[in-house]
Amino acid sequence: MDAPANEAPYRLIHDVSFGQGVVVAAFVNLYGCEIGAGTRIGPFVEIQKGARVGTRCKVQSHTFICEGVTIGDEVFLGHGVLFVNDKRPRATNAAGELQGDADWELLDTCVESGATIGSGAVILGGIRLGTGAMIGAGALVAKDVPPHATVAGNPARLLHGVPRHDLGSA
Amino acid sequence: MDAPANEAPYRLIHDVSFGQGVVVAAFVNLYGCEIGAGTRIGPFVEIQKGARVGTRCKVQSHTFICEGVTIGDEVFLGHGVLFVNDKRPRATNAAGELQGDADWELLDTCVESGATIGSGAVILGGIRLGTGAMIGAGALVAKDVPPHATVAGNPARLLHGVPRHDLGSA
Amino acid sequence: MDAPANEAPYRLIHDVSFGQGVVVAAFVNLYGCEIGAGTRIGPFVEIQKGARVGTRCKVQSHTFICEGVTIGDEVFLGHGVLFVNDKRPRATNAAGELQGDADWELLDTCVESGATIGSGAVILGGIRLGTGAMIGAGALVAKDVPPHATVAGNPARLLHGVPRHDLGSA
Repeated sequence: MDAPANEAPYRLIHDVSFGQGVVVAAFVNLYGCEIGAGTRIGPFVEIQKGARVGTRCKVQSHTFICEGVTIGDEVFLGHGVLFVNDKRPRATNAAGELQGDADWELLDTCVESGATIGSGAVILGGIRLGTGAMIGAGALVAKDVPPHATVAGNPARLLHGVPRHDLGSA
Repeated sequence: MDAPANEAPYRLIHDVSFGQGVVVAAFVNLYGCEIGAGTRIGPFVEIQKGARVGTRCKVQSHTFICEGVTIGDEVFLGHGVLFVNDKRPRATNAAGELQGDADWELLDTCVESGATIGSGAVILGGIRLGTGAMIGAGALVAKDVPPHATVAGNPARLLHGVPRHDLGSA
Repeated sequence: MDAPANEAPYRLIHDVSFGQGVVVAAFVNLYGCEIGAGTRIGPFVEIQKGARVGTRCKVQSHTFICEGVTIGDEVFLGHGVLFVNDKRPRATNAAGELQGDADWELLDTCVESGATIGSGAVILGGIRLGTGAMIGAGALVAKDVPPHATVAGNPARLLHGVPRHDLGSA
């Protein structure tokens, strides 16, 4: 579909593929991305080209989803969640010109279905968050998180109570 | 009162109770909340239904105040402060439908008068920040903060110089 | 120049000095600041009076640059970067009135040319980030960073591999 299911002012929406029943708040900047059926997008959210968000997700206010990020179904993204897709970003290239697409390597990040990312968490590029994983608010996630694991802190670490056999993939 | 004391473009204000002399910047999404007299609200701020902000507070840009949060008088909220009101949020319930109000427990948070919350701090749900408390920028606050104490870090810890008898309530 | 090089809706721009070819996204609040030639400003950005941004910088979405901040040339500011310019902010002064300019001390922060600040980083007031410095995503920077050093964490610490003679200025 070409449009969200609701009306709201102050939205910039260009070249976005919407599933059925997507609700999008005011004050958003969405372009070149895919949003699955039944998902809700809060205010002050930017989603860049190439990003994909699954069905029945909640994307809360002030969150930024960049190119290279793929989000499964039924994922909760809290407020102010930030994704990263570049390991060592710089403003300019060796010639002193603003970097373009050829000047850096895009890192892909995958958030599997049923995961939750707490408010204010930052997810570095090239990370996989397993299905049902729970990322604590304010966490800085610098390595993969196993399915159903809970992590928190800066840098994020597994919390107690996680089965030991899960640690191998962390 | 039904409106802020000033005019500004690009504001969404629905069902908000304003005290006298409240100044509200552009690019805000305020609904169902109470804002006390003389308080100032910056741009890119969302305040949800049920939240209450006292008198003569400063709420700086990019800050998010959720349902369940009560803020006293003369409180300073820096830029990009995030409150949380759910211990383990998920996008959907057991039936795979987007969660509604019946699917999660609202945690109440109280910020007592005269407190300061530094920019980028995240305040978990169910927390009490005592009167005059000082929360460092970037802190992740996961437990109560005694009156007049200063905390910082992720997770936030009391800084040196706090009277030992205050530690009991931390 | 009096205006950015591009058109975009929902921008508030007052008393800003632009170099040639500056590109400014929608949903911004810029006032009383200087933006150097060729720089790009993302959406949901606020830049306050007295702040200066150099040439060919990238300022990404959700970033806040306050009074007292001077940014060199070819600097990369990620998404959701927050600057601070007050050591112990309070909402009100001893008389119980909202603080004005006379009630607090402005701390100057300098980001030297070629530096990168990762997404979600918070930079305290009075800090100098040396030329080419790399600040990790989610870092809380509480002291100066030497030229070309990489720091990360909360509080930010130098990462391995930094020449020991650089540590003296950290």
